[in-house]
Amino acid sequence: MKYGIVAFPSKKVQDFANSYRKRYDPHYALITPHMTVKGVFEADENEIKTIAEKVNKVVRNHKPFTLKTTKVSSFAPVTNAIYFHVEPTAELVKLHEDLNDIQYNEDESYSFVPHITIAQKMNASEHDDILPQLKMIGAQFEEEIDRLHLLYQLEDGSWTVYETFRLSGAE
Amino acid sequence: MKYGIVAFPSKKVQDFANSYRKRYDPHYALITPHMTVKGVFEADENEIKTIAEKVNKVVRNHKPFTLKTTKVSSFAPVTNAIYFHVEPTAELVKLHEDLNDIQYNEDESYSFVPHITIAQKMNASEHDDILPQLKMIGAQFEEEIDRLHLLYQLEDGSWTVYETFRLSGAE
Repeated sequence: MKYGIVAFPSKKVQDFANSYRKRYDPHYALITPHMTVKGVFEADENEIKTIAEKVNKVVRNHKPFTLKTTKVSSFAPVTNAIYFHVEPTAELVKLHEDLNDIQYNEDESYSFVPHITIAQKMNASEHDDILPQLKMIGAQFEEEIDRLHLLYQLEDGSWTVYETFRLSGAE
Repeated sequence: MKYGIVAFPSKKVQDFANSYRKRYDPHYALITPHMTVKGVFEADENEIKTIAEKVNKVVRNHKPFTLKTTKVSSFAPVTNAIYFHVEPTAELVKLHEDLNDIQYNEDESYSFVPHITIAQKMNASEHDDILPQLKMIGAQFEEEIDRLHLLYQLEDGSWTVYETFRLSGAE
């Protein structure tokens, strides 16, 4: 079974992201707008309680963090995905690393670029068409994220929340 | 802002429900298969923390419950919705009532019929066509539900999980 750990931004940011995703992201219907903190990993269905305990241990050492989006960027030419760029603050990167230290993680073969995807799976010309417009409109938001969500994927590709975790780390 | 409280059944039940919802439920992409425990209610965006605290108090008095689906039924002629009938055990009904006692609830003008919707918004002939088949295939599942989820609705109609609550009630 496939799992992932994400943060959902506020309704305001999600609504704004969805105004693009509706048109440009075929994953639009599978999950609401999110920032992935620990990418997709495989684990047995029975292991979910163990995973949740481990996540719980990690979040106890982390405080709520600021999610600050600064601009619209693209992963092209690696992949034609367009996203809200999230500032990789030290606290967010540490949170990502601590979650990746939990077993079950896939090999991380690329570095952590926190983001909220708004468009993907386009062909090159579509991508090149819309990127300048989206860049010009931009995406400047700043808000506090005080929780993460552990999700699992259904057979049809959609994601269900298994559990939320408060970032309750002591000062 | 619109809120609701639901239980998600296991992946197995969700996958089975989705095999129908994909074809017969226009809400398919807005939320994964679920049983509503407290129906949609309106509350201010700033009230969500207060609501969560209240839900937290309720779940502390409730133990995990058995979700047992026994058959496929329909709400017709009231509405052409087809669903997995969930046995309204005393513990589930009490949980529903306690959650409804939280302020913010809409007037409950009908009684609680726990269910997992698999088809809706069909015209009468579609409904009458598929109901006998679905009834024949049936839906017999029994599993333990140990958590509820508080959701809120985005502008596009999709639902995001705000928080999960463990049914941690002492014996």
